[in-house]
Amino acid sequence: MITLSSDFGWPYPAAMRGVIYQQTDARVVDVTHEFPRQDVRTAAFWLREILPYFPPAVHVVVVDPGVGTDRAALAVRAGDHVLVGPDNGVLLPVARELAGDREIEIFDVEYGDPDSVTFHGRDVFAPTGAAIHESELDRFEEGETFTGTDSSVDLTFPEPDVGDDEIHGEVMVVDDFGNVITNVPGEVLADCFGEHLEVNYERVPVARTYAAVDAGEHLVTVGSHGNVELAVNQGRGDRTFGLGAGDEVSIRR
Amino acid sequence: MITLSSDFGWPYPAAMRGVIYQQTDARVVDVTHEFPRQDVRTAAFWLREILPYFPPAVHVVVVDPGVGTDRAALAVRAGDHVLVGPDNGVLLPVARELAGDREIEIFDVEYGDPDSVTFHGRDVFAPTGAAIHESELDRFEEGETFTGTDSSVDLTFPEPDVGDDEIHGEVMVVDDFGNVITNVPGEVLADCFGEHLEVNYERVPVARTYAAVDAGEHLVTVGSHGNVELAVNQGRGDRTFGLGAGDEVSIRR
Amino acid sequence: MITLSSDFGWPYPAAMRGVIYQQTDARVVDVTHEFPRQDVRTAAFWLREILPYFPPAVHVVVVDPGVGTDRAALAVRAGDHVLVGPDNGVLLPVARELAGDREIEIFDVEYGDPDSVTFHGRDVFAPTGAAIHESELDRFEEGETFTGTDSSVDLTFPEPDVGDDEIHGEVMVVDDFGNVITNVPGEVLADCFGEHLEVNYERVPVARTYAAVDAGEHLVTVGSHGNVELAVNQGRGDRTFGLGAGDEVSIRR
Repeated sequence: MITLSSDFGWPYPAAMRGVIYQQTDARVVDVTHEFPRQDVRTAAFWLREILPYFPPAVHVVVVDPGVGTDRAALAVRAGDHVLVGPDNGVLLPVARELAGDREIEIFDVEYGDPDSVTFHGRDVFAPTGAAIHESELDRFEEGETFTGTDSSVDLTFPEPDVGDDEIHGEVMVVDDFGNVITNVPGEVLADCFGEHLEVNYERVPVARTYAAVDAGEHLVTVGSHGNVELAVNQGRGDRTFGLGAGDEVSIRR
Repeated sequence: MITLSSDFGWPYPAAMRGVIYQQTDARVVDVTHEFPRQDVRTAAFWLREILPYFPPAVHVVVVDPGVGTDRAALAVRAGDHVLVGPDNGVLLPVARELAGDREIEIFDVEYGDPDSVTFHGRDVFAPTGAAIHESELDRFEEGETFTGTDSSVDLTFPEPDVGDDEIHGEVMVVDDFGNVITNVPGEVLADCFGEHLEVNYERVPVARTYAAVDAGEHLVTVGSHGNVELAVNQGRGDRTFGLGAGDEVSIRR
Repeated sequence: MITLSSDFGWPYPAAMRGVIYQQTDARVVDVTHEFPRQDVRTAAFWLREILPYFPPAVHVVVVDPGVGTDRAALAVRAGDHVLVGPDNGVLLPVARELAGDREIEIFDVEYGDPDSVTFHGRDVFAPTGAAIHESELDRFEEGETFTGTDSSVDLTFPEPDVGDDEIHGEVMVVDDFGNVITNVPGEVLADCFGEHLEVNYERVPVARTYAAVDAGEHLVTVGSHGNVELAVNQGRGDRTFGLGAGDEVSIRR
């Protein structure tokens, strides 16, 4: 199985599929092509949330503001999965999640002189992903095409500051429903369901489900990713709370 | 075959796919993930229009404003198809269509304590759909996991009032082109093609095709669903007619 | 393999898939359903860019402002590929590309009296594509259903006027990133990288990659299609240059 993730919208992902189908009969699955444009951090967050639900696969990821520059192309072995994409950090958070306690191996992909300098998704990453898939995932080896490296760009997410009375965190992403997903672990709400907390100086009910408050009312809950989430029942939390990716969130108990 | 329908946008549907691929090699097909958010009636309408074109399949449907509350999760056997989704009526109109003159069987799905209370698409409906598919559709049986029920929430669409001179109907949905789809059966236009009718007090040409009127001109026609549709050739009928889902439509002959 | 391309958005493409799956187990791949509505030229451009990356396939294309009129339905054999769609020119540019130096064969599809006059994607083109696929692509023959024709509507793209000092071209399309893709061949930039050119009376740096200029800065480059492209690093070229499809572009060296 080969998955595709990018910020391409349409129709460029179809060219990647065509290239892959020229090389392999593998099943090809779109994760999304709607990542915010050139937003490496948001893509890295969602990949870490979504890819661990997949069986072993080659995951081709293209969110690549540096396309055509001298940034490296990487193939990353992480547990039973392989990730292929640009060396800008987008692959590393999910690689750590997929690897668990196994070691991550990172390879530079030697890609010569591709047909374009502006569409490495089609000309470098898709054919590399297909080639790795054909070598049966866990057996592609260092050699002419792949060179071991330890100089890749990393990306980590900020840690929240969890005090007894006060928690300071950050908005990681806003999802397509408008739910505001923070980096604060859901456990901090464990004893508070049915009560209120102060979120950014506003009293907000703590609820297990969106529907626990009336339609249009705001709430703080634990999202499906396990983090604290600010939401509005049948509405958009980002607008009601006035929050976007990178904004600070303070919670007082 | 397993189909997926939801109001999730991106990237949550990919997690549902991953979960399914962990359980089965079945073909997985997206119907759409663009249903208007939490709009059970619109989803029910489109599912009834689209799913009957599919061969026998398990259809996983997640438009679920009550996620995490005590609303039941259902598996519905309808003819050669099985529908899986929340107990809010979204499954019933299409189930009647798929069943034809066969009886519909409705089961409560016992889903224990899922990983999240906010993403039953991933944690309840996708794995249930995959499990039913693996049991070969028509052979999943009442037992520990599935309990027969007759208390499910139903949903029906309003019937138009078709008189000899005057017809009163309602807008069911507006499609992605802006075509206004009513609940009035197309037969009422049978003898009127090439003439004009009064639609909401406006004279509108009755045409078989969009291109029968000039670009930008409005028309009333029979859509691909068999109902009366208000449209604009190469434009948006919803804007020209000023109509949206639930609005009244009166037609005078 | 069967590919699907249209301007349908959602959910109509799913009905096409259902119809196809009733007839064949072929792999079905979406190219895009986001072509601008009824925009035959833009669809023709993108199909010519994207489909040549696919292995031999049946490509079903539905951008069809004349649906239900007496416009013909075509099946076009082009090299190892077959294209199926309306007779409005949308199939011809890509057919020439796929055929290379082989002859293109064009057949009228006899489609009788389909279920709808407004959704030939579902009722004519999808079942025709599936039927051709089942006949193993290169062996469908003239006969009852297919009639050879030489009267199809053609579509060609304008040629740029490339002088020694001055080039006059046209915007072909704006892609989903906002990059402005012209009909001017990329070779005209060959000796200019690192310099500036005058584009529509404005001095613009010529760069191999988007990232060669600062974020937010404009540039002229060679896109992945091989044509001159006007872009903004991490921004939208269409807004900065004030250009859309069909607009004139003059370049002075």
